[in-house]
Amino acid sequence: MVPALEVAPQENQDLELDSDMNSNCNGATQERVAVIGSGNWGSVASKLIASNTAKLSSFHDEVRMWVFEETLPSGEKLSEVINRENENVKYLPGVKLGKNVVADPDLVNTVKDATMLVFVTPHQFMEGICKRLIGKVRPDAQAISLIKGMEVKKEGPCMISTLITQLLHINCSVLMGANIANEIAQEKFSEATVGYREDEETALKWVLLFSTPYFLVTPVQDVEGVELCGTLKNVVALAAGFVDGLEMGNNTKAAIMRIGLREMRAFSKLMFPSVKNNTFFESCGVADLITTCLGGRNRKVAEAFAKNNGKRSFDELEAEMLQGQKLQGVSTAREVYEVLSHRGWQELFPLFTTVYEICIGHLSPSAIVEYSEHKPNFALVDGSAQVY
Amino acid sequence: MVPALEVAPQENQDLELDSDMNSNCNGATQERVAVIGSGNWGSVASKLIASNTAKLSSFHDEVRMWVFEETLPSGEKLSEVINRENENVKYLPGVKLGKNVVADPDLVNTVKDATMLVFVTPHQFMEGICKRLIGKVRPDAQAISLIKGMEVKKEGPCMISTLITQLLHINCSVLMGANIANEIAQEKFSEATVGYREDEETALKWVLLFSTPYFLVTPVQDVEGVELCGTLKNVVALAAGFVDGLEMGNNTKAAIMRIGLREMRAFSKLMFPSVKNNTFFESCGVADLITTCLGGRNRKVAEAFAKNNGKRSFDELEAEMLQGQKLQGVSTAREVYEVLSHRGWQELFPLFTTVYEICIGHLSPSAIVEYSEHKPNFALVDGSAQVY
Repeated sequence: MVPALEVAPQENQDLELDSDMNSNCNGATQERVAVIGSGNWGSVASKLIASNTAKLSSFHDEVRMWVFEETLPSGEKLSEVINRENENVKYLPGVKLGKNVVADPDLVNTVKDATMLVFVTPHQFMEGICKRLIGKVRPDAQAISLIKGMEVKKEGPCMISTLITQLLHINCSVLMGANIANEIAQEKFSEATVGYREDEETALKWVLLFSTPYFLVTPVQDVEGVELCGTLKNVVALAAGFVDGLEMGNNTKAAIMRIGLREMRAFSKLMFPSVKNNTFFESCGVADLITTCLGGRNRKVAEAFAKNNGKRSFDELEAEMLQGQKLQGVSTAREVYEVLSHRGWQELFPLFTTVYEICIGHLSPSAIVEYSEHKPNFALVDGSAQVY
Repeated sequence: MVPALEVAPQENQDLELDSDMNSNCNGATQERVAVIGSGNWGSVASKLIASNTAKLSSFHDEVRMWVFEETLPSGEKLSEVINRENENVKYLPGVKLGKNVVADPDLVNTVKDATMLVFVTPHQFMEGICKRLIGKVRPDAQAISLIKGMEVKKEGPCMISTLITQLLHINCSVLMGANIANEIAQEKFSEATVGYREDEETALKWVLLFSTPYFLVTPVQDVEGVELCGTLKNVVALAAGFVDGLEMGNNTKAAIMRIGLREMRAFSKLMFPSVKNNTFFESCGVADLITTCLGGRNRKVAEAFAKNNGKRSFDELEAEMLQGQKLQGVSTAREVYEVLSHRGWQELFPLFTTVYEICIGHLSPSAIVEYSEHKPNFALVDGSAQVY
């Protein structure tokens, strides 16, 4: 099949020459890539990247991957086993990463020579990691964040890409999409979206670095839109889970997903007027939403919550179903609600608001499909023209 | 939940007054509705409409429903049983239609006094029905088509709404969306989209006539975009079914659905430059696509086709799985392919093209996710600016 508008091999060639011609000015003619993070998604990202750096002359073969060192039950260090087996036996067992992936437990050493930094850690660790990297990264380095689920504070979303730029004073793009790490590790067909700020040439380098025949990457000039999709979709996944638990059928589920996508779009555009409608047609938008609402932890626990008619709390169900892991969706729903109530926008976002009130037990799960006479009136909101 | 931008009761009030004030000029102060068709969806549409005409003073209570007369096994006439039982025992058993629904086997008599005509028959009968109605409908009547799956001829799509306007010389809107008739009959929450040409006041009358607390209708000024969504989604559903049959997972399925939505949008905009991007965010677009790719006949048979690795033809599987009923998707895929090859656009629509070639056995089902070096170049197509 011929997925349209993606980077095809002949275009890779152009990009490659292009990035050669624009090699950075301190003599280095090749980009050096460091991956900060080595969990499930970080390991898959390293595998994708390593398959490209091995063949593209504009990149140095070696991909250095920072490993938060652990001692395995065998008594060995995780980084040593990864380098010996060429496999992350703990977070991506059974998949070879590529011989040019080098695990390094030393964060500063990992980034030392890198011109392209790929951040893919749990988002709660990012602030600490960035602080340790202040003054340690090349001033000409470019960053990209694969981290979904930045925090949404009262004042507005606190983007991971912004955090990286503010602390390290380097430009930061994002890569988001319908990306279930294990399916991509098995080289099943998938897509992703690179969101960039101004520098299209750098965006195309990221596209080149991640694209494979089974992983198609499209660049869009809309960092905030792409990054917000990765977070807000988890709130919609809770709504979809409620519908599943109530056994309302595909028709209702599709309607709720559509309304959710519309609120994702409206919320993003009110927060950042630069956000583009078309971003929501990309993999980071509609495709990631579909994947998350079909499978996914948030949908699953929300389904159980609705089946129990809200009588068992999310904390209880999380502890039971996710071995104490926390659901992104529930905290994001609360954070989004804080923004809405802070600005008096609850009635403009009926789905987001209702999901939160169901999560905290103020409404029953069936409220997700109960009609109300309220009707959003965006005329009340400055700069809200055409948010829908 | 508060589905945004839908017609809330207080707005219904305004519309009602509004349509009263604008009652047609030949003295009638109430709209009279006729439904042409009484199958599964036609019966549900009559039920929705009847629940509104019974309470809104701007509409005459009675909803006249044309029944293609049949003799039931009991020897009774279908129309007589519907009028006695207030139920379409053959096509929507167990659901009361409303006492103000009157089944009429006489097509001409059904439309005689109607100011609002709702067409909801199988599309292959529409030309014959319209020909029988020439000169029989009120010149001031408004029409709406609920018929999905108009034909796509070499020269381009042959819209049902256009057929109605050309033959009956009346304005025609369309209503499409994620509408599984039986789920709506059970009053499960759902949405729909009314596509209209110029006359917004009439569009709002249609919204008023169909909207209920569990069925939310949104008007958009884009007849062609809305109508094409209802047809093209069946081609994407085949692609989604192939992915299911190949057991590629949700990630790949979401990617294929996204690429399909993009081709629906590009095809519609190349055919009708007036088509709007936002139409594809409405129920007729993304929501109907999701419903159709999750459930639906086309997806189901395509899944079986892929499981058999194309060794059993669609004709064979249809006969076995659908009691000889034909799949919309397969004929639409062929019709769309004829347009593409007629214009030399195959490479611009890799998904549509690949689905057709899989259907006719030129490619194996796995081709749906096989990468190719071809890449659409819309610069080659006149007026194609920003079709994506």
